[in-house]
Amino acid sequence: METYTFKPIGYVKTEAKELPRHWSYSDVKGELVIYPEYQKGIKDIKPGDKIVVIFCFHKSPPFSTDKLIQKPPHKDTPKGVFSLCSPYRPNPIGLSVLDVLEVKDNVIKVRRIDMFDGTPILDIKPFKAYSE
Amino acid sequence: METYTFKPIGYVKTEAKELPRHWSYSDVKGELVIYPEYQKGIKDIKPGDKIVVIFCFHKSPPFSTDKLIQKPPHKDTPKGVFSLCSPYRPNPIGLSVLDVLEVKDNVIKVRRIDMFDGTPILDIKPFKAYSE
Repeated sequence: METYTFKPIGYVKTEAKELPRHWSYSDVKGELVIYPEYQKGIKDIKPGDKIVVIFCFHKSPPFSTDKLIQKPPHKDTPKGVFSLCSPYRPNPIGLSVLDVLEVKDNVIKVRRIDMFDGTPILDIKPFKAYSE
Repeated sequence: METYTFKPIGYVKTEAKELPRHWSYSDVKGELVIYPEYQKGIKDIKPGDKIVVIFCFHKSPPFSTDKLIQKPPHKDTPKGVFSLCSPYRPNPIGLSVLDVLEVKDNVIKVRRIDMFDGTPILDIKPFKAYSE
């Protein structure tokens, strides 16, 4: 079967020692350091924007099928992995919606970080609300 | 530099002949066909759910740096790629928020499709709203 290979566009920099809570609760600040060859691509990201950051759970062990159903921490009921935000997934892709605080050169200062220091960033997209 | 390789968990099935509009406007219906080895992972996805589908823009040509700034169709001003939903991105990763209509065995019927028929699916996540 076809596979798809991606190369990071940058990485997360944060001083948080423990993994912060899910982005929707996190107040952790940090930086998205974008590699200089992609810097032009962030020119329209502005303080106050919400951005969708797609990254790799690079510290997750290889996926095994017993993880298709998992009991989330602080919950009683096991759930299918595609209904969870767990970092143990068939493809270890993470998604966080972050608040932009400042942009300078190739660095985006953000709030709501819930990734480890050094996490490889695969993509950044504008946050789009639903239009019902 | 490190690269990350992902294997599809399934693919999009739709009869739409032309690429539908962005998911936030699309009314196109279709199916997410999940490969049987991952079927257990979708057991908690229910009609009425909104799901985040992460996929590969598998028909996009290789990225070139002149695409770091692009003029979106129907807009006058060119923008940095990380502020756009364009399929031409350094990593051709797409994200759509779809409405679940029905789940049967390994098939999720959805609305708001904005991908081509045959698009490889990399991940499905629950849609989380902001908790301010």
